[in-house]
Amino acid sequence: MNRLRIGLLGCGHVGAALVSLLDEQRAEVAARTGIELEITRIAVRSTAKDRGLRIDPSVFGTDAAAVVSDDDVDLVVEVIGGIEPARTLVGSAIAAGKPVVTANKELLANYGAELFAAADDAGVDLLFEAAVAGAIPLIRPLRESLAAEPVERIMGIVNGTTNYILTQMAERGASYAEALSEAQSLGYAERDPTADVEGFDAGAKAAIIATVAFGAVVVAGDVYHEGISRLTLHDIEMARRLGYAVKAVAVAERTGNGEAQQPELAVRVHPAMVPFQHPLASVRDSFNAVFIQGDAVGELMFYGRGAGGRPTASAVLGDLVDAAVNLTSGGRGRIGHLVRARIRSIDDLRSAYYIGLEVADRPGVLASVADVFGRHDVSIRSMEQHGPRGRANRRPHPARAGEAVARAARERSERERETRPIDASGSHRFLDARSDDASLVFITHECRERDLQSTLRELRDLEPVHELGTVIRVIGDEHQQH
Amino acid sequence: MNRLRIGLLGCGHVGAALVSLLDEQRAEVAARTGIELEITRIAVRSTAKDRGLRIDPSVFGTDAAAVVSDDDVDLVVEVIGGIEPARTLVGSAIAAGKPVVTANKELLANYGAELFAAADDAGVDLLFEAAVAGAIPLIRPLRESLAAEPVERIMGIVNGTTNYILTQMAERGASYAEALSEAQSLGYAERDPTADVEGFDAGAKAAIIATVAFGAVVVAGDVYHEGISRLTLHDIEMARRLGYAVKAVAVAERTGNGEAQQPELAVRVHPAMVPFQHPLASVRDSFNAVFIQGDAVGELMFYGRGAGGRPTASAVLGDLVDAAVNLTSGGRGRIGHLVRARIRSIDDLRSAYYIGLEVADRPGVLASVADVFGRHDVSIRSMEQHGPRGRANRRPHPARAGEAVARAARERSERERETRPIDASGSHRFLDARSDDASLVFITHECRERDLQSTLRELRDLEPVHELGTVIRVIGDEHQQH
Repeated sequence: MNRLRIGLLGCGHVGAALVSLLDEQRAEVAARTGIELEITRIAVRSTAKDRGLRIDPSVFGTDAAAVVSDDDVDLVVEVIGGIEPARTLVGSAIAAGKPVVTANKELLANYGAELFAAADDAGVDLLFEAAVAGAIPLIRPLRESLAAEPVERIMGIVNGTTNYILTQMAERGASYAEALSEAQSLGYAERDPTADVEGFDAGAKAAIIATVAFGAVVVAGDVYHEGISRLTLHDIEMARRLGYAVKAVAVAERTGNGEAQQPELAVRVHPAMVPFQHPLASVRDSFNAVFIQGDAVGELMFYGRGAGGRPTASAVLGDLVDAAVNLTSGGRGRIGHLVRARIRSIDDLRSAYYIGLEVADRPGVLASVADVFGRHDVSIRSMEQHGPRGRANRRPHPARAGEAVARAARERSERERETRPIDASGSHRFLDARSDDASLVFITHECRERDLQSTLRELRDLEPVHELGTVIRVIGDEHQQH
Repeated sequence: MNRLRIGLLGCGHVGAALVSLLDEQRAEVAARTGIELEITRIAVRSTAKDRGLRIDPSVFGTDAAAVVSDDDVDLVVEVIGGIEPARTLVGSAIAAGKPVVTANKELLANYGAELFAAADDAGVDLLFEAAVAGAIPLIRPLRESLAAEPVERIMGIVNGTTNYILTQMAERGASYAEALSEAQSLGYAERDPTADVEGFDAGAKAAIIATVAFGAVVVAGDVYHEGISRLTLHDIEMARRLGYAVKAVAVAERTGNGEAQQPELAVRVHPAMVPFQHPLASVRDSFNAVFIQGDAVGELMFYGRGAGGRPTASAVLGDLVDAAVNLTSGGRGRIGHLVRARIRSIDDLRSAYYIGLEVADRPGVLASVADVFGRHDVSIRSMEQHGPRGRANRRPHPARAGEAVARAARERSERERETRPIDASGSHRFLDARSDDASLVFITHECRERDLQSTLRELRDLEPVHELGTVIRVIGDEHQQH
């Protein structure tokens, strides 16, 4: 029986859960691998705090650097979070030839390339399954199972807080503010929710996913992001009527113009409309899911808990066992050689878009709006007019995120009957005459973001346009299950 | 650059797709791993057949044993299928110290323990990601990511043919025979569909999943199975009204009474009612998905293509790259030490059940039916009476598998208003008086299978019971997303 000693850096939710989980699973791990794992040192800010753990109190100390350099520590687990001192500590462990398991997304999304290269040079494992999508096995499948797969695109719901908020809005008709406040009271959202709701957290995860999936260096700063704080119940209800759920997604894709040594990638985080029949649409509450499209593998999705002490500790422990087996057998996890990526600007994105407009309800308006789209090469896939916003659109919200495909289809065909065709001549019969304002909702065909933005700028200045509503990218329409 | 030579046994759909995929991905694999993979020999039944592959025709031959023993073959891929000659060939390759990648579920579900032990003794890889759930990375996450996770239960949709048939029945109102015939014309089902529709294929996969997840020997013969061929549209429609999708599932679970050295497991394949809000309910068409419940990890689901040449080849290639990296670096995949399992009899299963009865429509009938349940310790969670089957139950089938949670909830509350309470006194107001026959639908609380079967036997003989309909186990009701 081999015995390996673990130095644990940090003992918050995840660290404490790891101590308990390892205690419960030690015998099972030993039976399966022939290795006994023991946490022999834990670095914390204060040793005074009672964490209620079944572990010898003498393992606690406040000198993290001493834990890393201790000759009696074989493996290091870093669950402090943030850039420093984590970066220095992880670097020292690697330099000392000690495998590192980390759950630190900020660190990897900013200094991953430097740390991976150091680990590669030193010939030690640097494992980080817990850094993205918590408990979901994602990094290992991407690195190993899909090592030879031509991955084209990855779309993920990787922030549980925003998914919880959007689920509450869609299913209970809660406003954004109400849903956020509820998420805060449940501990899903921080008092300052910026990192979650503005997409910084998801952006860091997207950078790590892109790095692993495409074998290229992508950092947090490369990721375009838009948050969910401007989304309204009206947007979500309109999306539902059109057959879509609104989700905050992280997208990483190969855009096809790069060479093998410098692939061109697009990496972004933003709200998106996802068709109800797409597997991502039924991911509810604080769950995470990552959807992968590959040329050979087709479509894959991984679903599970994105956060929480015990689920995250499960991912850390899986990595620890892996690193321990490698340490005793001489094997090693692999990130492979990373190339530099060219990051495609969001301006060059090709996407379909949902656009809401409040316009004056009078003849000729649609013609002038349609003219703006046309002049910017933005072609319209569908248009609906819903009459005065205050009446037609404030329906009750019975829908839940897993809203029936059939219902959407039924409503779509009703809509096709009800919606009067675009009458570019602008005759009075098009717009609802009973009000001063009318709501127009457009979904475009795929077009360039740059052209869409020019269109929006011009629309904003168009006299009959009273308000330009939320613009939401539409994804996953190509999804067909068979 | 290392160069490794592959001997391929079999060149059907999967083998041919592997030849093409490796050809496309060779440079990428080499860039990432420093290893050049080349298929140097292929054993086929007939060399005359033109497979349209871009590969030197001289690599083809008919002597599979010679491919295995060839000193110029470093790794062996077995995609012949079936027990023999695959068993002998895989055994010879392992004995010769050559790593083996196989997609052969029959072989592993019957002789896995013998082959894993041989691979372990010889210190070579035996990898089989493609044998279960095709392209979905499942075996590697179970073996590695979840090596230290206390996995409690795995529920999978692992047969694409039956899922396609059930989806067609649920969404289009196709009969079982129509849906089967369509699956056959699309190539999803064999001319003799027994292996798929009676659960043999899923049973073999369940045995492999249980072996890997619980580290215990489980063979195909240990798996209880029931097929889908007796399911009717009526069953599926009733399930929908109650808020459930009907799915053919494979379940492997730890039943808790065993010791570490001999865990007690239950492994079975049968149709099941799965609540619409459960992630498995929205797995449509020929897709596969595997849902995992663990004490630490919570709930995980893996979703993707369960079959098809190219998706399966993607899984084989992932394993090949893994085996190649291990071969050059000295590492090795691990199945770990397998213990013997105690298999719990289906009689001891605890489950909830859906039961349909056609009974005489007259006073006192419900009382006598309820009495039978009660005497066998089967307690009833809900009961509905739907009047003459011909009228109330033959509604159109607008529903699709992803049917709205909200709609189910709405219908449930309508039902609660409409359904008259169980009147054990049997007063006439309970049963619909406008017909001779009435349909009763029961869902039980969790009870023992043995007690349920005694109940059914007695009900079958009860005079007012004209017909005992399909009995379907109900699973996943404990699923709560938060």
